[in-house]
Amino acid sequence: MIITVFKFAIFWFTLPLKKKFGCGKSTAIALCQNYFKQKKVSYIDVREPGGTPLAESLRELVKAEHQEVMSPEAELLIMYAARAQLVTNIIVPALNRNTWVLADRHDLSSQAYQGGGREISSNTLSSLANIVLKELKPDLTIYLDLDPKIGLARAAQRGALDRIEQEQLTFFQRTRAKYLEIAQSDNTIKTVDASQTIENVHQDIINVLNDFFNAEVNK
Amino acid sequence: MIITVFKFAIFWFTLPLKKKFGCGKSTAIALCQNYFKQKKVSYIDVREPGGTPLAESLRELVKAEHQEVMSPEAELLIMYAARAQLVTNIIVPALNRNTWVLADRHDLSSQAYQGGGREISSNTLSSLANIVLKELKPDLTIYLDLDPKIGLARAAQRGALDRIEQEQLTFFQRTRAKYLEIAQSDNTIKTVDASQTIENVHQDIINVLNDFFNAEVNK
Repeated sequence: MIITVFKFAIFWFTLPLKKKFGCGKSTAIALCQNYFKQKKVSYIDVREPGGTPLAESLRELVKAEHQEVMSPEAELLIMYAARAQLVTNIIVPALNRNTWVLADRHDLSSQAYQGGGREISSNTLSSLANIVLKELKPDLTIYLDLDPKIGLARAAQRGALDRIEQEQLTFFQRTRAKYLEIAQSDNTIKTVDASQTIENVHQDIINVLNDFFNAEVNK
Repeated sequence: MIITVFKFAIFWFTLPLKKKFGCGKSTAIALCQNYFKQKKVSYIDVREPGGTPLAESLRELVKAEHQEVMSPEAELLIMYAARAQLVTNIIVPALNRNTWVLADRHDLSSQAYQGGGREISSNTLSSLANIVLKELKPDLTIYLDLDPKIGLARAAQRGALDRIEQEQLTFFQRTRAKYLEIAQSDNTIKTVDASQTIENVHQDIINVLNDFFNAEVNK
């Protein structure tokens, strides 16, 4: 059976969580891609911040180290500027032609990193989300949860860290706490324990996808 | 007498208004600079968008032509990201050491261009201003008003136009209408008729500065 592809599926993940043996974000995304192909879902991949030439330029600016301190508000607004460009030029047009969207990060990351990590108020974040997202909301989010102590050690193993990856452990602990807090109150966000074996993480992701697709078919 | 320099003076001006014979924004700013020097006011110059290395990179992005259409929200958020960086790293530290700030554009330009020209809602603009400016408000703004028909012709004479300068006449007419509307309800904004002779424009600016300084001295 061919699944109708009206849905907007977005999956995103905490950082840093790359695992030494490849059960990190890119493996999880590849798993989703294969799953979509099997289900004959027409989809596109995007990543945030980025996904258009202008948004990728903004990504470079926000990840680079600068001579000056980047203010938390400037960081936040650059993230949302990139998101606005991606949503308007790529995501909404894809949805309008019944193409699904598989996203590596989305608004939840800003809520967790800027809201949790940088302690920016939820009022500020929701006013930006209103400006940029309007009615747009993912149908499914997979959050791969990992203790930042483990995640940081693994991220360091894969080489140079960007500006945000160089933050202190407490920053990532606040980020994680915010992810978990939001996930608890939103049943479209599925948390997967990324400290398990690769096989179990993969199985959990497949289970989440199966539940989602079965619910779609029965709608 | 030395004026105490606790004030935050900001002056900004509409675009495009460069005059063929040099009675535009840069001449007006030079006039303010000379005036400040005569009054022995310690001040710095800034320009928006820009004024820090990161904010200048954002300025380049927002002014450049891109292969893709820049969404109005992305443009808006880039402007405010640059403003956040300038306010946090340059303007607030200057004010804290009792240095005045002479700004080539500031928040009013976003209200006029994005609010008037791009027709973005005033709710959106005020929520961004709250995030970025908090309590910060200029003590004085000089708005050089010119019919966009004259302004555009003059801007074209000075060579290549940037992405925003290439907008249609109706865009600048909406921008100008918004400038005038806001100026009418805010007595810290002084409108100078820039269609007058150079001598009269200069005299009007000097009169505005005299009024402002006299009021400061008598406080």
